[in-house]
Amino acid sequence: MEKYKKNSEISYTFGTFPTFELIKNKPQFVEKILIHDKLTISADVEKLLNLAKANNIFVEKASKQIEKISDKDNTLVVGVFKKYTQKIEPNTNHIVLVNPSDMGNLGTILRTSLGFNQLNIALISPCADHFNPKVIRSSMGAIFSLNVQVFSSFEEYHSQNSNHEFYPFMLKAKTTLQTLNRKKSTTPFALIFGNEATGLDDSFLSLGTPILITHSSKIDSLNLPISASIAMFEFNK
Amino acid sequence: MEKYKKNSEISYTFGTFPTFELIKNKPQFVEKILIHDKLTISADVEKLLNLAKANNIFVEKASKQIEKISDKDNTLVVGVFKKYTQKIEPNTNHIVLVNPSDMGNLGTILRTSLGFNQLNIALISPCADHFNPKVIRSSMGAIFSLNVQVFSSFEEYHSQNSNHEFYPFMLKAKTTLQTLNRKKSTTPFALIFGNEATGLDDSFLSLGTPILITHSSKIDSLNLPISASIAMFEFNK
Repeated sequence: MEKYKKNSEISYTFGTFPTFELIKNKPQFVEKILIHDKLTISADVEKLLNLAKANNIFVEKASKQIEKISDKDNTLVVGVFKKYTQKIEPNTNHIVLVNPSDMGNLGTILRTSLGFNQLNIALISPCADHFNPKVIRSSMGAIFSLNVQVFSSFEEYHSQNSNHEFYPFMLKAKTTLQTLNRKKSTTPFALIFGNEATGLDDSFLSLGTPILITHSSKIDSLNLPISASIAMFEFNK
Repeated sequence: MEKYKKNSEISYTFGTFPTFELIKNKPQFVEKILIHDKLTISADVEKLLNLAKANNIFVEKASKQIEKISDKDNTLVVGVFKKYTQKIEPNTNHIVLVNPSDMGNLGTILRTSLGFNQLNIALISPCADHFNPKVIRSSMGAIFSLNVQVFSSFEEYHSQNSNHEFYPFMLKAKTTLQTLNRKKSTTPFALIFGNEATGLDDSFLSLGTPILITHSSKIDSLNLPISASIAMFEFNK
């Protein structure tokens, strides 16, 4: 085993909490659990080990391996799993992230998505690798309860999901989230967010209902996970 | 000059953008600007240098100094400034952060606060050091447009600011933000948030109107900057 790379066939969960979420939600992809000699058996750890046992998952003492593959010094539990591909469900709400580049941001958005029951996430490539352990860590394992599908372009996503109400979030939009009075609808919605630095390009101004989250001119923009979270909160009230 | 420490009398802005915000908003505390040999003069850099000149601020080529004090390899501009103390304004809305521990989170909350015109921030100690360059970086320099005051305890804050409508955000609250129907009021509000890991303790249940941001049981909680940002958005609609 080696440090995670984008083209690796396996990835890792670092820490008890994300590893628990991995086994609970995707046991079929777990290869094994590694534990460090320094691990003390807390109630959470015991719960994790019992869940591994119930799923016939092999638990191995492997301190040196952990130190080799982990990005932090204090990792005591690692889940090793095969990466998998998923498809988003077509007739449900989508969160669409166009070229998100920061792994911490992506993980935070995934966690919030799960928090607001938005279970289907479209990532438009190029984008941060959602199986990178940093994303998993920052999602607190939420990623294992979501459907995440990577599309090679927005057009590819759009051609397969044209039945949605589209809401691109962008600074040039005329409609503000603060005043949006959305009618109840049985049509699913897609909330679309651009890259951290560049946002969505002008072509999105002619798609659905572009939305601006009004903010003071003293900042350039709200940061990406903040915008996405406020939008999800508002659309799920 | 040396790497920043909590007890240093000076701190640093790393990067053109936060350094510009520093000079623009707090020129009286700037000691000098350091620039690296590798800096190329873009439009933004020229704007920065002109602003420094207009404020009679000394600009020094100091590549080795920058490499010594910076936490990243690609820092080309540094602002050196004297740390200062501030007082929050009593008759305005407050954001109260009780024991926030993560510097990135604190910076993100400061940026969002400025975005929603919440200019007065109370930090309850122990808390992340708001003058740490990591906080400044993650606030994108927003900190220089805010009043940030550190209190030694919540009681100290409360005894000086008892005229507010208090809204502690906590998982045990009965009233949800989603259903809160706040009456228009001339009384300023204080939105109160706890530590990332532990939240607010039960004593806050008897203060003002405790608020829960309802989320799915599949996550333990929304993360701190997400909760704070959703709250600020909703209270400023």
